[in-house]
Amino acid sequence: MYSPHLSATRQLKRRLGARVDTSEQGCWAASFDSSKISFLPVAVITPRTEQDIGPVLDLANRHRVPVTVRGRGTTLMGSAAPVRGGWVIDMLRLDKVTIDADAGMAHAQAGATTAAIQRAAAAKGWFYPPDPSSKEYCTIGGNIACNAGGMHGGKYGVTRDFVIALRGFLPTGEFVEWGTATKKFAAGFNLRDLWIGSEGMLGVVTGAVLKLVPMPAARWTLLTAFKDEAAAFNAARLLFRQRVQPAICEFLDRESVLCAERATGRTVFPGSAFAKAPADKQARRPVILIELAGSLAEVDDLKMEVLAWAQANAVAFKEARSRAEVEELWEVRRQCSGAMFELGDSKLNEDIVIPMRHYGKFARFIASLKRASNLPIPTFGHLADGNLHVNIMYHRDNPAETKAAEAAVEKLMKTVVALGGAISGEHGIGLAKTPFLRLQHNPAQVRAMQAVKKALDPRGILNPGKMFGVVRIWNYPRVQVKLPWDHK
Amino acid sequence: MYSPHLSATRQLKRRLGARVDTSEQGCWAASFDSSKISFLPVAVITPRTEQDIGPVLDLANRHRVPVTVRGRGTTLMGSAAPVRGGWVIDMLRLDKVTIDADAGMAHAQAGATTAAIQRAAAAKGWFYPPDPSSKEYCTIGGNIACNAGGMHGGKYGVTRDFVIALRGFLPTGEFVEWGTATKKFAAGFNLRDLWIGSEGMLGVVTGAVLKLVPMPAARWTLLTAFKDEAAAFNAARLLFRQRVQPAICEFLDRESVLCAERATGRTVFPGSAFAKAPADKQARRPVILIELAGSLAEVDDLKMEVLAWAQANAVAFKEARSRAEVEELWEVRRQCSGAMFELGDSKLNEDIVIPMRHYGKFARFIASLKRASNLPIPTFGHLADGNLHVNIMYHRDNPAETKAAEAAVEKLMKTVVALGGAISGEHGIGLAKTPFLRLQHNPAQVRAMQAVKKALDPRGILNPGKMFGVVRIWNYPRVQVKLPWDHK
Repeated sequence: MYSPHLSATRQLKRRLGARVDTSEQGCWAASFDSSKISFLPVAVITPRTEQDIGPVLDLANRHRVPVTVRGRGTTLMGSAAPVRGGWVIDMLRLDKVTIDADAGMAHAQAGATTAAIQRAAAAKGWFYPPDPSSKEYCTIGGNIACNAGGMHGGKYGVTRDFVIALRGFLPTGEFVEWGTATKKFAAGFNLRDLWIGSEGMLGVVTGAVLKLVPMPAARWTLLTAFKDEAAAFNAARLLFRQRVQPAICEFLDRESVLCAERATGRTVFPGSAFAKAPADKQARRPVILIELAGSLAEVDDLKMEVLAWAQANAVAFKEARSRAEVEELWEVRRQCSGAMFELGDSKLNEDIVIPMRHYGKFARFIASLKRASNLPIPTFGHLADGNLHVNIMYHRDNPAETKAAEAAVEKLMKTVVALGGAISGEHGIGLAKTPFLRLQHNPAQVRAMQAVKKALDPRGILNPGKMFGVVRIWNYPRVQVKLPWDHK
Repeated sequence: MYSPHLSATRQLKRRLGARVDTSEQGCWAASFDSSKISFLPVAVITPRTEQDIGPVLDLANRHRVPVTVRGRGTTLMGSAAPVRGGWVIDMLRLDKVTIDADAGMAHAQAGATTAAIQRAAAAKGWFYPPDPSSKEYCTIGGNIACNAGGMHGGKYGVTRDFVIALRGFLPTGEFVEWGTATKKFAAGFNLRDLWIGSEGMLGVVTGAVLKLVPMPAARWTLLTAFKDEAAAFNAARLLFRQRVQPAICEFLDRESVLCAERATGRTVFPGSAFAKAPADKQARRPVILIELAGSLAEVDDLKMEVLAWAQANAVAFKEARSRAEVEELWEVRRQCSGAMFELGDSKLNEDIVIPMRHYGKFARFIASLKRASNLPIPTFGHLADGNLHVNIMYHRDNPAETKAAEAAVEKLMKTVVALGGAISGEHGIGLAKTPFLRLQHNPAQVRAMQAVKKALDPRGILNPGKMFGVVRIWNYPRVQVKLPWDHK
């Protein structure tokens, strides 16, 4: 079998032995991420220590071998797919986490899962807020690569807001550290934050120091329903206008509620007038799930404000009165996304962001997009930061639906940018959003980014083919495989 | 008189007319910042609109004219001094601030002062936490350039943590925007954060969108005194171990307390046993000034914990029982820095950062440094984030003292880096810290930074001569001038 980079790969094997896997099965497993678009690498390296990575990069750089770093591959954007082949570095064995309980910091290797960091912190009374929904699987390295967010973004911030320092390697294999384990650092250009969100294209992160916050002593959960989507968006704005900052403020439109009900087999508001017709979307109501977090006293204070707001603005609301009831409410949110695959076998999940002042306009736009495309477009997301997941559902074998989906995503992205929003809030660009990068950034901005890429990775070995080239992933075949985090 | 860049400056004047000042007085006033080291520019441009700046840069870039952007010039690091001459852009007229009260964001032009932003936010119930002590004078553009911090860093964060989006110009004069007015943004490389802290060397910031937090409803202030510096550092660690996050936690060593007492004419702990001998440093006690902020209920809760901690660890403490008493306690902190000039006519103010786990070691080191150098080294700063201001005081005309000061600063920087700390927490590098940049960063790190500079400013026109060259500012003469924020 012909294999490019043969001599470099041989040297790699001599150097790292069993840490290098060139088997067909190993390469196949590393050939795709959650986008399920497959590009075969020629070798998969599983470092046992961070120091293993320097020589790999040195060799790759000298021989111009593409290198794609992967954690668990939960990204939907194709960011971890080795589009140009070459080598994949699998970080899963670098998964150490320690907590500095005095300073309120976590020291984590890139392969540690977000949930493992949260659990280690919680054991010492600390809280790591960023929580992508894949947190049981995804790694902090991946979170850093795409600047992952989650439901706590509005009040607490995203991954970037919690990264204090990074260490890792330049594509030359040289070891670097950006920042120290201190909350202040103003010495030299900030390459730490340039690496964050750069999707593995500027350097390889092997470890991070993360900021923690005191674990909130109390949480309180309320589910609210609204007349329609526009009313829900408007009500959220009214809440923020009072300067109430819920820890979580999750919106689900009627289609998302319907998906959740199908998945859980329960009606979201049992007994309410609008829960009568099980299959009828119009008989549902959009909901906002609110969670307050803080000290007991603080939550007690805010709760009164939120209940008064619900009374004035919602058509129904339900307070969780026990841990079990909280779980039940959250089940609605957790199940809605996977259950969407009953509306179509394919999903374009667009994690766009809308400035709060345009919530009303955006609600009207989504309603018109649903009508015009004639596709199900269940939409849910984080109203405290405007980061909404617009899920365009279609059947791949149906050319009319595929075309409508493609047109809808394009219209969506243009509208988002016209409203002063972002084409991605927490997923990154990868391959999936490459057609829209130039809607967000003017030519000078793109040139500046490319100049930075060229400066830090002159031979272009790190995750090549992402970000700047234009790839329409909906035209690619997908591997048929069930990933652990896929909808059952 | 010979003037370099003559033809370019003529074109500039034709283009911008009265916005260009080439008078001797105008150029002199723009020739130095708070470091008082003077380098004459050939023209000072005062843009009336942000759009004025594009053509200035375009012209400068084509003619390779150095461009230094200045706000008020409060920096102590020499960052705003036009070391290579050329043109200075003075941003003070671009000072518009508007508040988006729903989204909790401030939109500010680069020349707005930090205090003006705080006041505009406060008027709508919002709070902008970063608060350099020069906040009544310094501009947000300058804060962004050096990633300014202040007393609220431990709990709230620094300037970087509050910048949502930036707009401005590349050195080519091309307009760029980094980020949108949204709390999430994950689309493309993050040049926003690369600009922040880059000291005007990578681009020109003209405006920023800033994150605000709800104005705390309650504040509570406590002054505590400790047996000695080591006891104070140790007590602070114990407080943080309880996961108490004061909004402010300011430390003043005995020398700083003495300075404050001289400046205010009051003893910090009147009536206490150790306030008897007015001139004796050893008869003073180091203090920690604590401020809690939050909802009424939250502050009430935390107060009990802090009082119990003070009872167990402090030798004396005093709670402010009125707004006037709060002001009195803060007066101590505010006066100590300026009053240090009674200990020497020159100050090396080093805003280093120490990881919390090394507080004990650092307290011992500072004590030994004072003994070894035989200089007054009053030290104060922000214990919640380890950012301490070590003020090495000496008389410039005394060669022995100057030599001792230079040796002390070198020893300090080496120790800070050996303890895993940062050579600057909030001032930046400018000229003053250039001798120490390579202690903090290994050669690969410095090369990467220089590559980024070259990529974004290929002709090297933006604030040249800073960061990477080595300048020992203590060898330069200083202009004799009283700046508005100097000690009276």
